[in-house]
Amino acid sequence: MAEKFVSERNLKFLLYEVFGAEDLCTYPYFEEHSREVFDMVLETALKMGRNLLFPCFQEMDKIPPEFIDGEVTVHPVVKEFMKACGEGGWIAANAPFELEGQQLPILITATCRFIFSAANYSASVYPLLTAGAAHLIEAFGSEELMSTFIPRMFSGEWQGTMALTEPQAGSSLSDITTRAEPTGEGYYRIRGQKIFISAGDHDCAENVIHLMLAKIKGAPAGIRGISLFVVPKKRISESGDLVPNDVNVAGIYHKLGYRGAPITQLSLGENNDCRGYLVGEPHQGLPYMFQMMNEARIDVGIGAAAIASAAYHAALEYARERPQGRSARAKDPSLPQVPIIQHADIKRMLLFQRAVIEGSLSLILQCGLYADMKHVAEEAEKERYGLLLDLLTGVAKSYPSEMGVHSVSQGLQILGGYGYCDEFPLEQYYRDARIHPIHEGTTGIQGLDLLGRKVMMKGGKAFHLYGEEVRKTISEALETERLRPHADALEKALVQLEEVTAYLKGVAARGNPDLFLADATLYLEFFGIAAIGWQWLKQGIIVVRGMEAAASEKEKHFYQGKFYALRFFFAYELPKMGGLFERLMNADGLTLEMEEAFFRD
Amino acid sequence: MAEKFVSERNLKFLLYEVFGAEDLCTYPYFEEHSREVFDMVLETALKMGRNLLFPCFQEMDKIPPEFIDGEVTVHPVVKEFMKACGEGGWIAANAPFELEGQQLPILITATCRFIFSAANYSASVYPLLTAGAAHLIEAFGSEELMSTFIPRMFSGEWQGTMALTEPQAGSSLSDITTRAEPTGEGYYRIRGQKIFISAGDHDCAENVIHLMLAKIKGAPAGIRGISLFVVPKKRISESGDLVPNDVNVAGIYHKLGYRGAPITQLSLGENNDCRGYLVGEPHQGLPYMFQMMNEARIDVGIGAAAIASAAYHAALEYARERPQGRSARAKDPSLPQVPIIQHADIKRMLLFQRAVIEGSLSLILQCGLYADMKHVAEEAEKERYGLLLDLLTGVAKSYPSEMGVHSVSQGLQILGGYGYCDEFPLEQYYRDARIHPIHEGTTGIQGLDLLGRKVMMKGGKAFHLYGEEVRKTISEALETERLRPHADALEKALVQLEEVTAYLKGVAARGNPDLFLADATLYLEFFGIAAIGWQWLKQGIIVVRGMEAAASEKEKHFYQGKFYALRFFFAYELPKMGGLFERLMNADGLTLEMEEAFFRD
Repeated sequence: MAEKFVSERNLKFLLYEVFGAEDLCTYPYFEEHSREVFDMVLETALKMGRNLLFPCFQEMDKIPPEFIDGEVTVHPVVKEFMKACGEGGWIAANAPFELEGQQLPILITATCRFIFSAANYSASVYPLLTAGAAHLIEAFGSEELMSTFIPRMFSGEWQGTMALTEPQAGSSLSDITTRAEPTGEGYYRIRGQKIFISAGDHDCAENVIHLMLAKIKGAPAGIRGISLFVVPKKRISESGDLVPNDVNVAGIYHKLGYRGAPITQLSLGENNDCRGYLVGEPHQGLPYMFQMMNEARIDVGIGAAAIASAAYHAALEYARERPQGRSARAKDPSLPQVPIIQHADIKRMLLFQRAVIEGSLSLILQCGLYADMKHVAEEAEKERYGLLLDLLTGVAKSYPSEMGVHSVSQGLQILGGYGYCDEFPLEQYYRDARIHPIHEGTTGIQGLDLLGRKVMMKGGKAFHLYGEEVRKTISEALETERLRPHADALEKALVQLEEVTAYLKGVAARGNPDLFLADATLYLEFFGIAAIGWQWLKQGIIVVRGMEAAASEKEKHFYQGKFYALRFFFAYELPKMGGLFERLMNADGLTLEMEEAFFRD
Repeated sequence: MAEKFVSERNLKFLLYEVFGAEDLCTYPYFEEHSREVFDMVLETALKMGRNLLFPCFQEMDKIPPEFIDGEVTVHPVVKEFMKACGEGGWIAANAPFELEGQQLPILITATCRFIFSAANYSASVYPLLTAGAAHLIEAFGSEELMSTFIPRMFSGEWQGTMALTEPQAGSSLSDITTRAEPTGEGYYRIRGQKIFISAGDHDCAENVIHLMLAKIKGAPAGIRGISLFVVPKKRISESGDLVPNDVNVAGIYHKLGYRGAPITQLSLGENNDCRGYLVGEPHQGLPYMFQMMNEARIDVGIGAAAIASAAYHAALEYARERPQGRSARAKDPSLPQVPIIQHADIKRMLLFQRAVIEGSLSLILQCGLYADMKHVAEEAEKERYGLLLDLLTGVAKSYPSEMGVHSVSQGLQILGGYGYCDEFPLEQYYRDARIHPIHEGTTGIQGLDLLGRKVMMKGGKAFHLYGEEVRKTISEALETERLRPHADALEKALVQLEEVTAYLKGVAARGNPDLFLADATLYLEFFGIAAIGWQWLKQGIIVVRGMEAAASEKEKHFYQGKFYALRFFFAYELPKMGGLFERLMNADGLTLEMEEAFFRD
């Protein structure tokens, strides 16, 4: 099997050459760090990926979690990995020093998450979810909640989750019915059902800490009445022991892929003895939770691009080694067959994968950098970075998720029949990757969010700032001869995006919100292609310099490969915006008018 | 679970209203048949689908074939189904009366295959493969081969296969090494390896008859040296008993999906006692085999559209029953949630599925009609139908295969998290569907075949005839007010197709075959979208009449649904040709120039 699942060279290219990770160390918050520290962190992540995670990613699929007598058992590597993550400071990597965190930039930790996810996506989610849950307590919880829960979560002993979804309320959080009854004794009594809770229970953690949405009795209807609670599987008794908290696992799901992580159904308060601890203010649960969700959305983008990366490297190895056929010029059957990587169509599929993966990762790291800058920049600049991050989060979730599925599928296709068989890992990557357009908000939900909220917020300010960012890249690229046609193409794409946005805003202004949003999913796709084009152009500026200045043949080849992937994106992917433009400029209400009765026959 | 896997109304619409199936009965070859006979055949197929196949399609996935001590066991329903197919005349459905066949039009049997495949794709391949293998013996074999093998194949007692692929020769058949040594005793001694042989062995057939490609000792190199043999698992001894023929199963594959059918590795002549019987002339194996392959390619298109149909009906049922969220106009959380089918984005996904499935099936039946006409038309017309069939076979294989995967994926997406879990059948359909872009010639191979052979053959005659066919439909549609914009759009698409084809022919003429074919896969995609647009326009002519003349509300709704699916195709799918056009008109050699070294880093 392929031993490679990420390109280390490309990670360093993005971090240091494109996004200038060292520059972050000039800010006081990151001043303890340096390129050397970042390199060491990356090296450690790669080692954990290679030695601990990658060797068992297929086994975790073949031996999925089991649910027996109310208990969930998972692959034992989870315990080892959580322990390693606790000891290595990975769960607390972004937390400040005063909380025993590593105070690392998100730019760096996002890259490490990419490495872990590429090595073994299922395993990677356990510490990720724990970090996200701890971060939420850290941001909004009381001192007591922080001191009670965070240390054991950061140490990897306790699992964290986010518990939003309910059977009757999937994407519609305003309809959750889990109830929290005040007791006046410092806790609420929780009762309800939660479904699709990732890592919602397992035997490799001593305790599971659910960050859970529920409604306090008498709260307003809808999303304005949702509060956030810490609901542990086991609570701490007065004598300091862990005792059961009436959180019961009703079952786990049998899934297409992503099988190494248990997705659970939880039943809370069956014996009226489930205690939840309010986080922050009552009825503010949704805005709080969105912090974690936004982190989780970027993580989904990372996971999607990472699985696609691992699939690409497996397909690349196969393509190099598998002899089959000959070129159209030399069909002589007495000549030996050539490795299939020599066929244009195979190279097309490999370049497609690179265009998607490296473009996606670039957008994700762009978001990581915005998140860091939002944290460390001067007050006047914080809003700008925050708005850009808000606008792009759904795109950085959805483009990798949707296109990652296609990318893995092309990898599978390169192996032909073998891609369909479990002797090779492609079929697993294909199954694993399909979760991403679904979890943490489906692509449809992301489309509504992007067009209906993010593009419209603050009078379109985020969208305007985004245009500025893209045009900054375009201007810079126009100075480089070899990038000029691509810069022009991106400018045209941006103008189209602005045109479509203005057109749809006009529809909204005429008072038809359903028509305005009818093709929001297509708008997201359209937006995403342009955003990835932007990221490729941004990379291109460095790539062209690199091709000219490369110190070795190997380095030169790296930059040449990048340049072909860039050219591929502009030649094969960016033109897809044309068809979407045609559709988006025609709000004819087709899907609104289609009646349910017309689906019957 | 959904009880519906096909729309019977749509099948009848296509057969009788669009393709005028009864008209075939005016030809002497089909004169014994009538609309009543066809209806009865369809009704029987639907019953078999509902009662025998559909109830076990999930079980066949969960309990896949096993390989123990050299023997392959499969789900017992296979025996029952093969028997029913034998007794009902299904395997011999297209064969002439004199061979105890039913002499049914391919138009009708293709529709029945669609029903079987939608009900249970894995089960459907056993009789299909048997029919294809028998048909090959019938077309090219000696009287003796026919009388020995065909009756027991038609009865469903013996399984047929096609055995082409070898470990070192996947898509490159010129490199097969299976050897056939003449013995002068009426048979050849066969020795070699075959892989990926569908239904290559199982315990529900008394014998397995492989139609196998091999090279006779001393044959010319490459595809000109390939011969076709009948190689039975058990041969008939002089005393008339079935005795082992040294055909050994080396293993079966564990696959992503399509798990109900065993895909085997065969080892032939390990004990130098494997006898093969030459079919037809030596060294003519490949042209012979292409008859079966072309049938099989259409069958793959059928299977792909059929799985997508079953997935659509499951998604539709879910969308009707699942309450979630509210319209953008009425967000009041105190109002009840609405079934998700009321959301525009869900309707968009359902319409996408219909546009793909009903467009694909229409193209497939168009090919079926051409095949029938090639058989029954006057001599002067036969070539025309033959050329059209040849040109469109790869398209009718590939468009449903590629787009079927996307169609099923959208069905899965409608179910959200449930789509990813095995409580619902979508995840299985998603796995099953992914085989189709691979088997019977990958999409890449189909692209090379379409552009490199079919479009070029006889000086472009088939392509020219195709243009005539499409323009016939366009002219007719232009007479209908409501179709005019769509007819215009298709004319524009056809002109673009002609432009691209001329441009690429120019590249070929300049003596660069590799550059000419570099984007053949994209050309196939481009061609496919236009072909489906043609089929939708063709349906549209009937649909518009139907909407006006419908005798009942229900009928009116059926035609209205069809019209929305047509409009959807023209609004959302046809515009995708624009981006492909831009790329295809730019043979810059990007993928040819990309060097293997640039993939290293």
